[in-house]
Amino acid sequence: MDAYFHERNSLIDQDLALRRDRVKVKTSTPSELLADGIVRGVRAKEAYSVWHPGGEPAYYGDDNTPHIFPGMEFLTARDIILKTKLFNILLKMPKGALLHAHLDATVNARTLLKLALGHPNLHVRTSRNLSFTNLTSTIPEFRPFVTSPSSSFGLTDENYAPGEWVSIHRARESFHERLGGPAGFDKWFIDSLMINPSEAYEKYNTTSKIWRKFRSTFEVSSELIRYAPIFRGYLHEFLKSSVEDGISYIEARINFHYKFMFGQDGLENIPHREWLVALKQVVEEFRRSLKEQSREDEFIGIKIIYTTLRHAPPEELEWYIEDCIQLKQEFPDLIVGFDLVGHEDTLKPLIDYIDPLTRFKERQNELGIDIPFVFHAGETTGDGTKADMNLYDAILLGTKRIGHGFSLYKHPKLMSICRERGIAIEACPISNEILRLTSSMPMHPLPALLNQGVPIALCSDDPAVFGNMGLTFDYFQVLVASETTGLLTLGQIARDSIQYSLLQSAEKERALELWERRWSKFIETIVHGHHNQDALRN
Amino acid sequence: MDAYFHERNSLIDQDLALRRDRVKVKTSTPSELLADGIVRGVRAKEAYSVWHPGGEPAYYGDDNTPHIFPGMEFLTARDIILKTKLFNILLKMPKGALLHAHLDATVNARTLLKLALGHPNLHVRTSRNLSFTNLTSTIPEFRPFVTSPSSSFGLTDENYAPGEWVSIHRARESFHERLGGPAGFDKWFIDSLMINPSEAYEKYNTTSKIWRKFRSTFEVSSELIRYAPIFRGYLHEFLKSSVEDGISYIEARINFHYKFMFGQDGLENIPHREWLVALKQVVEEFRRSLKEQSREDEFIGIKIIYTTLRHAPPEELEWYIEDCIQLKQEFPDLIVGFDLVGHEDTLKPLIDYIDPLTRFKERQNELGIDIPFVFHAGETTGDGTKADMNLYDAILLGTKRIGHGFSLYKHPKLMSICRERGIAIEACPISNEILRLTSSMPMHPLPALLNQGVPIALCSDDPAVFGNMGLTFDYFQVLVASETTGLLTLGQIARDSIQYSLLQSAEKERALELWERRWSKFIETIVHGHHNQDALRN
Repeated sequence: MDAYFHERNSLIDQDLALRRDRVKVKTSTPSELLADGIVRGVRAKEAYSVWHPGGEPAYYGDDNTPHIFPGMEFLTARDIILKTKLFNILLKMPKGALLHAHLDATVNARTLLKLALGHPNLHVRTSRNLSFTNLTSTIPEFRPFVTSPSSSFGLTDENYAPGEWVSIHRARESFHERLGGPAGFDKWFIDSLMINPSEAYEKYNTTSKIWRKFRSTFEVSSELIRYAPIFRGYLHEFLKSSVEDGISYIEARINFHYKFMFGQDGLENIPHREWLVALKQVVEEFRRSLKEQSREDEFIGIKIIYTTLRHAPPEELEWYIEDCIQLKQEFPDLIVGFDLVGHEDTLKPLIDYIDPLTRFKERQNELGIDIPFVFHAGETTGDGTKADMNLYDAILLGTKRIGHGFSLYKHPKLMSICRERGIAIEACPISNEILRLTSSMPMHPLPALLNQGVPIALCSDDPAVFGNMGLTFDYFQVLVASETTGLLTLGQIARDSIQYSLLQSAEKERALELWERRWSKFIETIVHGHHNQDALRN
Repeated sequence: MDAYFHERNSLIDQDLALRRDRVKVKTSTPSELLADGIVRGVRAKEAYSVWHPGGEPAYYGDDNTPHIFPGMEFLTARDIILKTKLFNILLKMPKGALLHAHLDATVNARTLLKLALGHPNLHVRTSRNLSFTNLTSTIPEFRPFVTSPSSSFGLTDENYAPGEWVSIHRARESFHERLGGPAGFDKWFIDSLMINPSEAYEKYNTTSKIWRKFRSTFEVSSELIRYAPIFRGYLHEFLKSSVEDGISYIEARINFHYKFMFGQDGLENIPHREWLVALKQVVEEFRRSLKEQSREDEFIGIKIIYTTLRHAPPEELEWYIEDCIQLKQEFPDLIVGFDLVGHEDTLKPLIDYIDPLTRFKERQNELGIDIPFVFHAGETTGDGTKADMNLYDAILLGTKRIGHGFSLYKHPKLMSICRERGIAIEACPISNEILRLTSSMPMHPLPALLNQGVPIALCSDDPAVFGNMGLTFDYFQVLVASETTGLLTLGQIARDSIQYSLLQSAEKERALELWERRWSKFIETIVHGHHNQDALRN
């Protein structure tokens, strides 16, 4: 029997040998190992006390009790998660870098509403008269106007003519009682920006259905965020909420598809470079505010991955490539990468853009600049489909990281290339689950990538739409869905998020050093919290 | 660009190099390549004409239209699948061997009803009075009686006392009008033996909920199949429907948990050896009937994998091990393997049984017999859980194949061991989907195993419960869920099902030879059918 267990442990070790946390485990401090054990204990305890309180769910009767389990559908689980001890431990964990977030989907919808209401210039309209039955399928359209073209009517008056603009405050204050009044307006606003459980898990519960709803949230939010005054407030909120969650560095994707923002004069004439000027100003203010609280070490900075939509014909991509080069030349420390975004399953695959992308690399060489590719690829359940094959082209084009890489687990050679060349995967588990690539965390293939030693960074993708602000929720979902994964796994992922970022050497070293210091403090908090608990009990 | 595509093709080749169908593709005949192309064409065409007829599903309105797609939930898709050209092509494909099927869940429920009604000795009872509201949650219990202990009342009379036995014909004929009369009885009977879409996809749509319903179908069916006269008819139907579907050889799992069957005298005293005597007789009769039609080459035979439940304490397993040895000694050509069955997530893992299983192997050595292990392992979404770890123990114990191996895709070392040692995976895709390990075929990790070169056999597992009689449905679901997979992939899987069976060398060679002949004919049918269509069009 001893011989059997010896052989068994050896086989398990060989099987998990490539895991990046295994390497770390060998060099862990006693406190780290203890903290890992404490957290595993909390997870095991709450697997029953929180997620399985009555034992097996009743088979007969009570069929409508939702079956809750660790790693279940996030939109339904969110409120339960917030009350767990595990979540509250993870809140305090230093998260490292957020490497995959679409800037126009990073701020809480309720906060965006508050920002919007702070700008009376904003007007709203709808394409049809709102009614109780069409409320959830009719989105608001926003635009700033200096001289008000306001309709004589409120948005929900029976005389409102679809297409006419109403000032946001008037629309809200006169929102019909039958539709909930001002509170109803707020709900309508927020619902148009988010995916709710019924949409993800019932009405639109397949990838192609949910992407339509997903896209419509951007139709609404982009018009608000493209109003320069709101953009600044939005950015500030994003930085603030990220740092509060323990994120110290961000590489955000800005969608430069729209060529202009709206200015305070209501004109759609603010070019891309002004967006980055504004970004730099907001970052400066934010750093100052942190310094006032002696918290400046909590924020390394934010850099931008230039993105545009993957539906443009290859010739049109040239404009965006040139634009990206110009922005890089003007803001060399700000622009760190280039990507194409949009629904991989239905829009153009990377293979369609080989010519312009190859020329892009040549242009960079000529100009002596470096704008690495950081491509979305494999965000699909397809096998051998165009989206799945994007993984090949992303790697051939020299991508530095892969966004999502959901279907990567099927590809043995590609996984070993990612491991050997240090191509990290920007894994977005909650996004993948809500956008119906997978039904719940236990079904998510992330453990396959972890076991193959592929470097992983955890990312929120579009927290405004999903409700997974910060990174604590994504770390939580990954932790509860596996017995192999533990706190040290999460620590390695956070460490890797900085290691595989596009920071320059000196910046990166400093970022890692600062993170290690915060990590040690975090570990000590867990260990001492546990000892205090024991002391109280004894 | 040429250079790029050259590099790309090379990368794809390297990535798919381990696939067992890639090896085959290199040696395929022109007809085989043509047939593969034809089938891919049919798949591509029907992806739109059958599965996507209106284009993108309407986003607004029409929310209740189920979203259909290739590889969607089988229970909902079944009727659509039956009408496709692709399914009707696959019906004619020689399937090779069925290596994973639980004998007591292999025959169509409607056929089992017919068999049951042919035995008036059978009586039925319920644990509570049936009503419209409790019909689907109250199962029938069956037992044969020679002298009828019949209740004076029908099963649905208001005076029926729960627990009293009613003869099956009386119960059926007097089944209350309000509950559908005799047709209602039939529906109640069949529903108790099968999982319907609403159960799998709504009411019990998680693994642990659906397993309760799944287990209850066996509670009902085992009492019928344990009636020796029904057992013979059941076996005959199983062989007949298998051969009709193009299956030529079967390794069926018999659950020997119950120590006795009921005889025609109503006594529960027919021991295991008699079950196998009956099996041999049914097989003889079946072979004779095939020979009368000159179809004897379509059926190599059926062998048995001895199984018992994985909930017994380790000491109790000894009885079943001894029993298995005795049956092997009496029926050396019939017993080919040993396995433990039952819900892996909640019952005992293999690690609990190391002692008795190790002693089992020693006993076999002493006696000069060989009863290979053919373990269920990894039928779970767990990661690092007991069920997931069963994969390690199955391999350490020397399993010849692995049943399900659903979580194998996460384990790099274990996959390479399976590839190198030729441990085939008995993949049961439709079962995995209905039992909620995965939500649809595009999410099933089978492509990961195919790309790692792990030998695969496709299996139905419990067709009586799922409705996936034969193997055509499972082959269909695998084919439509991937662009990489084609007809030649399916051919390799069918070939491997014989290659990795537990047939002895000479039998295996003959079985493979017969299969190759049928495969060639099948290929020619596809090619000529296509030419005839072209000819008709021109």
